[in-house]
Amino acid sequence: MAKYLIIGGVAAGMSAATRLRRLQEDAEIIVFERGAHVSFANCGLPYYLGGEITDRDALLVQTPAKLKARFNLDVRENAAVTAIDATAKTVRVEPTTGAAYTESYDKLILAPGAKPVVPPISGLADAHNVFTLRNIADMDQIDSFIQAHKPRTAVVVGAGAIGLEMTESLVRQGLHVSLVDATSHVLPALDVEMAPALHTALQNHGVQLHLGAAVTAIGDHAVTLSDGQPLAADLILLSVGVRPETTLAQTAGVALEETTGGIAVNDQYQTSVADIYAVGDAIAVTNQLTGQPALISLASPANRQGRHVADVLSGVQTINKGGIGTAIVRVFDQVAATTGLNERQAQAAALNYRMVHLNGKDHAAYYPDAVGMSLKLVFDATTGKVLGAQAVGPRGVDKRIDVLATAIKAQMTVFDLEELELSYAPPFGVAKDPVNMLGYAAANVVQGLTHTIQWHELAGELAAGKKLLDVREPDEFATGHFKGAINIPLDQLRSRISELDKRADYIVSCQSGLRSYNAERLLRGHGFNVQNLDGAIGLAAPVIPELITTEVTV
Amino acid sequence: MAKYLIIGGVAAGMSAATRLRRLQEDAEIIVFERGAHVSFANCGLPYYLGGEITDRDALLVQTPAKLKARFNLDVRENAAVTAIDATAKTVRVEPTTGAAYTESYDKLILAPGAKPVVPPISGLADAHNVFTLRNIADMDQIDSFIQAHKPRTAVVVGAGAIGLEMTESLVRQGLHVSLVDATSHVLPALDVEMAPALHTALQNHGVQLHLGAAVTAIGDHAVTLSDGQPLAADLILLSVGVRPETTLAQTAGVALEETTGGIAVNDQYQTSVADIYAVGDAIAVTNQLTGQPALISLASPANRQGRHVADVLSGVQTINKGGIGTAIVRVFDQVAATTGLNERQAQAAALNYRMVHLNGKDHAAYYPDAVGMSLKLVFDATTGKVLGAQAVGPRGVDKRIDVLATAIKAQMTVFDLEELELSYAPPFGVAKDPVNMLGYAAANVVQGLTHTIQWHELAGELAAGKKLLDVREPDEFATGHFKGAINIPLDQLRSRISELDKRADYIVSCQSGLRSYNAERLLRGHGFNVQNLDGAIGLAAPVIPELITTEVTV
Repeated sequence: MAKYLIIGGVAAGMSAATRLRRLQEDAEIIVFERGAHVSFANCGLPYYLGGEITDRDALLVQTPAKLKARFNLDVRENAAVTAIDATAKTVRVEPTTGAAYTESYDKLILAPGAKPVVPPISGLADAHNVFTLRNIADMDQIDSFIQAHKPRTAVVVGAGAIGLEMTESLVRQGLHVSLVDATSHVLPALDVEMAPALHTALQNHGVQLHLGAAVTAIGDHAVTLSDGQPLAADLILLSVGVRPETTLAQTAGVALEETTGGIAVNDQYQTSVADIYAVGDAIAVTNQLTGQPALISLASPANRQGRHVADVLSGVQTINKGGIGTAIVRVFDQVAATTGLNERQAQAAALNYRMVHLNGKDHAAYYPDAVGMSLKLVFDATTGKVLGAQAVGPRGVDKRIDVLATAIKAQMTVFDLEELELSYAPPFGVAKDPVNMLGYAAANVVQGLTHTIQWHELAGELAAGKKLLDVREPDEFATGHFKGAINIPLDQLRSRISELDKRADYIVSCQSGLRSYNAERLLRGHGFNVQNLDGAIGLAAPVIPELITTEVTV
Repeated sequence: MAKYLIIGGVAAGMSAATRLRRLQEDAEIIVFERGAHVSFANCGLPYYLGGEITDRDALLVQTPAKLKARFNLDVRENAAVTAIDATAKTVRVEPTTGAAYTESYDKLILAPGAKPVVPPISGLADAHNVFTLRNIADMDQIDSFIQAHKPRTAVVVGAGAIGLEMTESLVRQGLHVSLVDATSHVLPALDVEMAPALHTALQNHGVQLHLGAAVTAIGDHAVTLSDGQPLAADLILLSVGVRPETTLAQTAGVALEETTGGIAVNDQYQTSVADIYAVGDAIAVTNQLTGQPALISLASPANRQGRHVADVLSGVQTINKGGIGTAIVRVFDQVAATTGLNERQAQAAALNYRMVHLNGKDHAAYYPDAVGMSLKLVFDATTGKVLGAQAVGPRGVDKRIDVLATAIKAQMTVFDLEELELSYAPPFGVAKDPVNMLGYAAANVVQGLTHTIQWHELAGELAAGKKLLDVREPDEFATGHFKGAINIPLDQLRSRISELDKRADYIVSCQSGLRSYNAERLLRGHGFNVQNLDGAIGLAAPVIPELITTEVTV
């Protein structure tokens, strides 16, 4: 009868424990959780604090008693494992109450998770109003603080998913929130040009955005930004990221993966030390798109890894294949989701990538309440292999990103996206779904039927003498256009083609890039040298406002 | 300069025309549409009749004038093409007004669509209240009839997608609707055990369901069913299916595919006659799962085929790969969607398939307003290749079927479904998404970790002497259970295992099949011979009610 110890009883650890039991009815399985709760709904914490989830018990998915009854698990909460003796094959357990003790194992599974990064900020050590959010205890502390101190202002440091969810939650609780992030935009998984809709949503709900800024000092009900600006801060939430919890693993001499700092495991979740396995947020996985080590701190992969390490330990064939990373976050009335590589990651991996941007509808435009979403696809320039996708909009974003995540997992190309047969009836989709449209648009790029330029290349190209032709209607043009642009509406382009100069190089633009693509093909058919501004002015205007004017120059 | 004639100006034809223009600026392109409207929103017709879409113009996506201005297309509405002379390479055009004429072509694209099947019913020829719904003219006729005659009762014949949508639309207009179908359940794309939730939704909204029945005669404000029963019928809608429109093609000697009656095309959309191509609902395509010819009358594939025939004619490389078929329909507060093969199709194709049923949530159970959905996955018994999926529920069904449709296109296995990284935050998904869960459950079947039986096998197995063990709680058991079932709640199973007989064969059941799977593994670990009832009593009760009782027999 094998004896398994599992360190960590949340997603990965508990999935491992229950699967182990189903596969080995006679095994001895002990789960140690240093916190007060196993198997809690980690991702629900911000929603409880925002008052959307009102029943705290709903977050507590399991109890030791229930796990004993159903799965015959020996679950020990408030039981920190502080050291591993890999030679003796024992661990040292220090419960919150009671004496420390030693427990032996045949196989040890590490599922300790990740811990919030706490940056060094002056005044942090003395502050009593600074929080991180990773578990039920953190949530309870924030909740108690809000009840007891009635904070009116908050500063959230770090605009990743947790920072954004907590910003919305605190606004829902009536606080005035400042959101600070060191980068140029919220949600680092997005590329910068995809973020403006989120910035607008935040600002529309009264959030003060401080981008490209850091908190350098914490004072009395205030913080100081890197530019010296003070911000009122009755409550401060640090959400600048997490790092793998590896302290315990290192007591056993378990090797870490160098570039990420996560626990190194092979494709059977084995660490460098015999009979010690590791799963969940603490491990480094292989990014399936770059082949490089990566950290993916998400619930779904953690659950899968927990299940699969139990398979490994039970002789059920499985492989740790790594991951691609898929995430979603709601920001008030907008939703942003990402999968695979963004442009910066594709660039960092030195891939030969291209991209397309487009706007789509969540369902048929002629059926009530259709809403727009903006999408970006990153793909291999030569093969068309899909590398990553981003989507932002009020609705329907989760579906498209899930489809694209599936396509990426399947190593599909942009030509395969054209072929996808997605469910269509007017309330649910579009006959040419945004995902199909991404395929069509990207296939045009790979096949050389369109020559695009990106928003960040525009200033340089115009400075080099290219002419910008805007094919929107005059009333659209009048509301704002690129400085120096010529305006000929698409539907007049054939009849007014003599107004253009065949010796010139043109860049065409419209609102979203669709009409200008038609204009590009038209002009190319007439022998013009022309490029399409991918995403057109709708995408570019918020990120290169300096190139925009309402003055009609032609 | 090539001259293209396109017959049919809706989805496939118009996609071909606009793509051709983008690829060949100098081509002559003429589109003939026998109806009064090109490029209308076919799938919106029932929603206009139901009053959800109030603007008729919203359905009219394009006009000849707009298509001329933007794409330089010569679009001729009310222009029936009645004959093709493939030798002379001309067609005969008979406009609604004006003289017939001949038009020559270099290449001809047939996109005539499909026409509603009208079954031979006594009295049909004399009736003035019988309609089909395929285009704007049909819709206008029904609309005018309803306005003029204020029908109070309707009979809808055929419970496919259009029949179901029109049933809901007529109920929304205040009519009492009887829905008649010759099969045992609505929506033939579903297997029978997946349909009860739709039957309930229809009945909850006052629809009279007549299944396994046909309309044999049409009389005055009434029809007669095959069992002699009369039904009040001020209005009758025939929605028993469509068949390819091939009359014109046959005038040119174009060969049809024998088993389907659709126009036969090769992987370049070429018909059997030189310089004649065909796309859309009129053609036979290859079912990618069976390799057999099939008809797929859906908007998305038609659009893609139109685009791709233009590629073929312009030297842009593409292949007609065929399809898998993905469809969705709303039935009041329920949504049903399907992709790939259902069980009957897998059986007909003599595939070695297995299946799993399970219930899932649209989003995290601990976040407000989570709703359940039921899912079915059909997969290869040996390789685990996914063959088809069905889902029914109030919300979230479209997303899961789209993900599964993508997985099927990618030839993924159930093991790949486990690996999918789908977007998860509490409002949008589940950490173990229903799609992942389908993968887990199906992988257990393929790997032999669970031995399931299906609902339709239960009666036989019980008659053969197997014992049924229900592992729900006593209060659940009391509300209804299989006759003769033993009740031991899962959480008591280990302590009461001595109550079971190791020489007996057990079938375990619960509400959805999850607890009973755990019970199966537990009992198997103790040496019992046990099978899990896939989908459990929740799935089985509506389809085998004769096996259910509320009497406690043990």
